[in-house]
Amino acid sequence: MSSSPGLRSLNINNINPHVKAAEYAVRGELAIKSEELRIRVKENAPLPFDSVISANIGNPQQLDQKPITFFRQVLALVEHPKLLENEEALKSSFGYEQDAIDRAKWLLKEVGSVGAYSQSMGAPGIRQSVANFLEKRDGFAADKKDIYLTAGASSGVHTLLHVICAKPETGILTPIPQYPLYTATLSMLDARCVPYYLDETHGWDTSVPGMREAYEKATNEGTDVRALVVINPGNPTGASLSAQDIEEVIKFAAERKLVILADEVYQTNVFIGKFHSFKHALRVMQRRDPGLYDHVELASLNSVSKGMVGECGHRAGYYELVGWDSEVQDQIYKLASIMLCPPVIGQCLLEMVVNPPKEGDASYEMYHKEYNTIKDGLLERATALYKAFEQMEGVEVGEPQGSMYLFPTLHLPKKAQQAAKEAGKKPDDFYCLRLLDATGICVVPGSGFGQKPGTLHLRTTFLAPGTDWVSRWTKFHKDFMKEYS
Amino acid sequence: MSSSPGLRSLNINNINPHVKAAEYAVRGELAIKSEELRIRVKENAPLPFDSVISANIGNPQQLDQKPITFFRQVLALVEHPKLLENEEALKSSFGYEQDAIDRAKWLLKEVGSVGAYSQSMGAPGIRQSVANFLEKRDGFAADKKDIYLTAGASSGVHTLLHVICAKPETGILTPIPQYPLYTATLSMLDARCVPYYLDETHGWDTSVPGMREAYEKATNEGTDVRALVVINPGNPTGASLSAQDIEEVIKFAAERKLVILADEVYQTNVFIGKFHSFKHALRVMQRRDPGLYDHVELASLNSVSKGMVGECGHRAGYYELVGWDSEVQDQIYKLASIMLCPPVIGQCLLEMVVNPPKEGDASYEMYHKEYNTIKDGLLERATALYKAFEQMEGVEVGEPQGSMYLFPTLHLPKKAQQAAKEAGKKPDDFYCLRLLDATGICVVPGSGFGQKPGTLHLRTTFLAPGTDWVSRWTKFHKDFMKEYS
Repeated sequence: MSSSPGLRSLNINNINPHVKAAEYAVRGELAIKSEELRIRVKENAPLPFDSVISANIGNPQQLDQKPITFFRQVLALVEHPKLLENEEALKSSFGYEQDAIDRAKWLLKEVGSVGAYSQSMGAPGIRQSVANFLEKRDGFAADKKDIYLTAGASSGVHTLLHVICAKPETGILTPIPQYPLYTATLSMLDARCVPYYLDETHGWDTSVPGMREAYEKATNEGTDVRALVVINPGNPTGASLSAQDIEEVIKFAAERKLVILADEVYQTNVFIGKFHSFKHALRVMQRRDPGLYDHVELASLNSVSKGMVGECGHRAGYYELVGWDSEVQDQIYKLASIMLCPPVIGQCLLEMVVNPPKEGDASYEMYHKEYNTIKDGLLERATALYKAFEQMEGVEVGEPQGSMYLFPTLHLPKKAQQAAKEAGKKPDDFYCLRLLDATGICVVPGSGFGQKPGTLHLRTTFLAPGTDWVSRWTKFHKDFMKEYS
Repeated sequence: MSSSPGLRSLNINNINPHVKAAEYAVRGELAIKSEELRIRVKENAPLPFDSVISANIGNPQQLDQKPITFFRQVLALVEHPKLLENEEALKSSFGYEQDAIDRAKWLLKEVGSVGAYSQSMGAPGIRQSVANFLEKRDGFAADKKDIYLTAGASSGVHTLLHVICAKPETGILTPIPQYPLYTATLSMLDARCVPYYLDETHGWDTSVPGMREAYEKATNEGTDVRALVVINPGNPTGASLSAQDIEEVIKFAAERKLVILADEVYQTNVFIGKFHSFKHALRVMQRRDPGLYDHVELASLNSVSKGMVGECGHRAGYYELVGWDSEVQDQIYKLASIMLCPPVIGQCLLEMVVNPPKEGDASYEMYHKEYNTIKDGLLERATALYKAFEQMEGVEVGEPQGSMYLFPTLHLPKKAQQAAKEAGKKPDDFYCLRLLDATGICVVPGSGFGQKPGTLHLRTTFLAPGTDWVSRWTKFHKDFMKEYS
């Protein structure tokens, strides 16, 4: 059908300019190209590789991570409760234990049907389980009225930033490098990203002096800084904040009246250091210095997509609000209600993630074994990739610290930088595109996360199994460096 | 813990004013109160009723609608693929037919794991099934590259309006009464709702002259009207547009270069008249008058929450874009990618909704029977409620036309209006609050959808089973009218 574009209502120049301005490299040009290559591999097209490796996104079950059996056993029952009419067959033919059956019955009692809308904040019984988990994790009370279930952490971030960003001058302190959800959402909301740099020379530490400097500069330029984002453990860096750093961040937030948005989705993905929650630190400080920190507002986000669970496709998560004004919480409830409710089957999954089988439960042993196998596998893969990077000329990388990523620095030869320029690409984009074309490995250039001017990086997940893809990369890198030496 | 609100960063007066301005009555004051009452009923508190009836929201499975067995059989298998290792037990112990097993295998091949992120627009094979459905429904080609899977129609509307609303002067023609998702989203995006009234005297018809008048007025006032919303069949009215009306709307949109947002989520919930899709009408007009309508931009939305499926909790749906600029579609893709992907188990459900068992398939008979039982039940309940309204003094209502709602007019006595004023309530809010307090029945006042000044309505679903709740209402109404006569 012939089209008459001049007559259309919408074109790239008259749609929402803030949508146009948003950048999201994790699923950008490289990811689109990798999907095309995946189709060509299926069609047996002549390519220098026989598989596409999606190392651009933390998507464990797309690679070969298996779901945790207990979770999926229960989800099958809540999807199709008629299965519960024959418990004997579940046990004898399908290896169900009684606790899986009991959990499904309990979840069904809480939600009625996974086909019904729940309360907009999520089913009360499931929010109570999240509260129990937080109490146990932090040693401080948690209340289900402050817990909001979400369709993954991304939708929680979207809601919270939507409420906080009041005008174009609103600024949010954001780590650089960062997961680009933050900069993209701030673009869409026509608010300002106030970047603060993580300290690469000290294992990507969060430096409060750097944060303060960024705050002062932005304030002097007329930005109304209202919140700060901390991703802990870091994405893309994997670094965990020390207890001391967290305390410094809270002090700074208290002093400047900044909401703390703590993205804690990688809280169980820690290899070096230890995860300390912001909630715990805040409560300790409040107890120690009565009155000084009572006004601090914290939102802590978590997700079923990460950890050893990796259930990205189920789109589930939650955030807890600590210290927020109740009228503001009412507005957040309203926003949630306009979207009706988070996916209910995802809520059921979240319940099990925060309340897995315990020692003594019939399914515990299997759960525990599967969990640890995944955990060990992640460290093993991370280490293999780290060792390969260490051997590559011009690649600098710290030991794997956590999350699902490595974020090495690239020192590219002048000639490569020149070739990138001639191709109209940033040097890290150029390297990553060449890597994809030559090996089928898709990663994200550092420019997609932000990096100090003059430095180059890339982010790769360490989820893909085997060593074949790593050797492909090593060979490519050697050839690339030779070509441009 | 003592709080120091003055020290907080956020309060109701400094958060995003557009969030604050948004109104969403479907889950507003009455809904919150009804949840409180539900808890009190459970606690055996002394109340004049023994159950809360949530007639405020189209949530069939919260009441007693059973899910369609075939869908849930398959979803259990894709959640827990290990069940497929014993097909004989599935058949003998749980009544599975081979086509359910085969469908699950096919879906698993398409998505890999429901725990993995899919492509941001949705899994390609599932989008192809949607395209096949649309081709069959409309008799015109559909292409999966123009089909975007969503977490329910609400998130689709949110994305589309987000792209279209470019500035505070952007206006969207919106029917009144309307499902308040539209006005709420426009408030949040700081854009203008340009209301056009549906014609209550003619069964809530969509009148293009009324639309044109609203357009002219808004344009004269400096509004840049860019799109029009049609909800067909109507929410809250249930009315279906005639083929003639649809053609008139398309002509008007073509003349004024307006994007058509066709909310067609109730397309199978039709009692009177017939559903005509905008896509079909547009393609017929394009074929008949070559060149005249090629520039028309249409987005058509659908959902698994409505129809006879009623799978609200799964949050799944899609929209098809027809005639959109490819650069604008790229921006929509980017927005979708920032949110990663719609829930994958919901995508699987959507696939079955658009591609259910066919005549000759082993599961067809069961599917067909369940589908028709639900369909007949809806008409039966609608009719019973309609008859009750007909008997109520001061209540005027047309025959049930479609969707899941009745939207009667209330003629309240002067004394009741006076009492409402004294209570600081709108008269329809006052009536609905009294109804809830006396009977436990929760409905939505007409003011939540918009209504012509001086008129009063309410929206009730006709999903609740039995006749007991209807008699409660009849008795309440008699008492109420007597009290204020």
